[in-house]
Amino acid sequence: MKNRMVKLARRPRGMATREDFRIEDGQVPEPGAGEFRVRVEYISLDPAMRGWMNDAKSYVPPIGIGETMRAYAAGIVEVSSNPAFKPGDAVQGLFGVQRYAISKGERVVKVDTSQAPLQRWIGGLGMPGWTAYFGLLEVGQPRAGETVVVSAASGAVGSVVGQIAKIKGCRAVGIAGGPEKCRYVVEELGFDACVDYKAGNLAADLKAACPKGIDVSFENVGGEILDAVLLQMNLRGRIAVCGLISAYNAAELPPGPKNIRFVLIQRLRVQGLLVFDWADRVPEAVAQLGQWHKEGKLKIREDVREGGLDAFPDVLNLLYTGGNMGKLVLRV
Amino acid sequence: MKNRMVKLARRPRGMATREDFRIEDGQVPEPGAGEFRVRVEYISLDPAMRGWMNDAKSYVPPIGIGETMRAYAAGIVEVSSNPAFKPGDAVQGLFGVQRYAISKGERVVKVDTSQAPLQRWIGGLGMPGWTAYFGLLEVGQPRAGETVVVSAASGAVGSVVGQIAKIKGCRAVGIAGGPEKCRYVVEELGFDACVDYKAGNLAADLKAACPKGIDVSFENVGGEILDAVLLQMNLRGRIAVCGLISAYNAAELPPGPKNIRFVLIQRLRVQGLLVFDWADRVPEAVAQLGQWHKEGKLKIREDVREGGLDAFPDVLNLLYTGGNMGKLVLRV
Repeated sequence: MKNRMVKLARRPRGMATREDFRIEDGQVPEPGAGEFRVRVEYISLDPAMRGWMNDAKSYVPPIGIGETMRAYAAGIVEVSSNPAFKPGDAVQGLFGVQRYAISKGERVVKVDTSQAPLQRWIGGLGMPGWTAYFGLLEVGQPRAGETVVVSAASGAVGSVVGQIAKIKGCRAVGIAGGPEKCRYVVEELGFDACVDYKAGNLAADLKAACPKGIDVSFENVGGEILDAVLLQMNLRGRIAVCGLISAYNAAELPPGPKNIRFVLIQRLRVQGLLVFDWADRVPEAVAQLGQWHKEGKLKIREDVREGGLDAFPDVLNLLYTGGNMGKLVLRV
Repeated sequence: MKNRMVKLARRPRGMATREDFRIEDGQVPEPGAGEFRVRVEYISLDPAMRGWMNDAKSYVPPIGIGETMRAYAAGIVEVSSNPAFKPGDAVQGLFGVQRYAISKGERVVKVDTSQAPLQRWIGGLGMPGWTAYFGLLEVGQPRAGETVVVSAASGAVGSVVGQIAKIKGCRAVGIAGGPEKCRYVVEELGFDACVDYKAGNLAADLKAACPKGIDVSFENVGGEILDAVLLQMNLRGRIAVCGLISAYNAAELPPGPKNIRFVLIQRLRVQGLLVFDWADRVPEAVAQLGQWHKEGKLKIREDVREGGLDAFPDVLNLLYTGGNMGKLVLRV
């Protein structure tokens, strides 16, 4: 029995490649006092991961060269000297891209696998779901009857954002890449419309999908999508900035939104968000999302990839090439 | 006795030229029922004017071709059939670039020329002052001890913003073009520091002037200045977007802020503002600004240009070339 770890070997330029990581085997770690060991079953692939690899100012320190790649993950407690976590407990937390993790329990959430399968607790019921919940409701502040637009609408966060918008009585409009994703967003998730940004008429199609303009935009992408959204924003609209994935792999910073004048013209509020800002309210999000999920109002899908830890670099890049549908997860 | 009017002859491309206007003489207009006639003495030159000339979506309709150029102005009531305004009253309002204006009194403010000279009521005690007051306090929401940065710091709005920041116990840092403006901002207006963006080290100089980072930025300029500001913003900082003058004369839209990722990293709030949004609270701003001015806490300077209405096109462009210091005003 060995541990297997995916470590950052060097800082990527542009999109990460296999050469940027080093896969190492080592001893299975033993928990010290107050610690427990988790056997990791599912690794969460999150767009923010690419930023964590850069040696740049961000909301968390960069991953050091030679360190195990940071990741949210879900697994089962095997050995514990922490009274709050018992062997057999299903948990999710920042366990890293490795087979076995040691934790003191900080920011680890125990999850109920009778309510939803383990992998869902790093998806729509986990951090991406909480991000959608707090980001839309606290930053976007949608009111019934308003139009809410969300980019990366078929993704882990976007899919939850649009469904919460519907629950709150809004018109939900997604932006996604390709007809298959758009069909999923409308027919399976219940959005009112979905614009295919790959179809080549983004600005016109978005306008048509939002006949009363946009009141709230939940931005996951940035770039041309943000520029198209800005053109349609209504007076005193809100743009919740959750991600700017279009720029995460750029070796040179791309230009910012050229339609920024609409911030002024329409007196928009553009506000960045990070789920950690509501760390003390996570139980509320878990309970509410779980309730909606049980009632069938919140549909959640994972895109689980096989191949184990060795597949991590390739699976990660699916996020940036639009290759996943629903929450992207790697099975260890 | 003739009226003289500056009319928009065609839509400018890039910076407006004399050929974009037509100067016409006509009858002195007579007020109808409920109206009064103002003899305009001072025309306010405002950065927003360039945008009003474009046939584009904005917060007000564009000025039509052949229409008198829109402008704030100050003057004296000559003839009135409106009981609220008497001959001899000093007033300010949206009277246009002309010698004589007819008004129903809508959004016209009577001013006290014993308290401050007439031209100041279209400057620091008028619309630019109200913009600074509401924009900084309501959108920027500075707290004592925080660092407030304002661009175009020697201008009509910026000069008031920094002084209010000082009154509220903040560190006030200006950004202005050239050593003379920076000296004025620090030595005469009492800002803590002023960065000369023309000196060629904007990012480094701004960092040095803000050793504890930036909590509130009052943005009048955009472009490279906004990008430099974004790099220094503190967690949960606020950017009050009042103007984006760097782009107003661009024939092609310039790229937006490439450092927009800091909105996300630092969870910034970027919010556009327009003084009309606080129209019902103008008396509060007039009273408070007047009080600070009387107490010597708020210094106001006008840059009054001669040459009459014929000089309007050239004087207007001083705003965009950085040719004015303090509120730019044209004497009719």
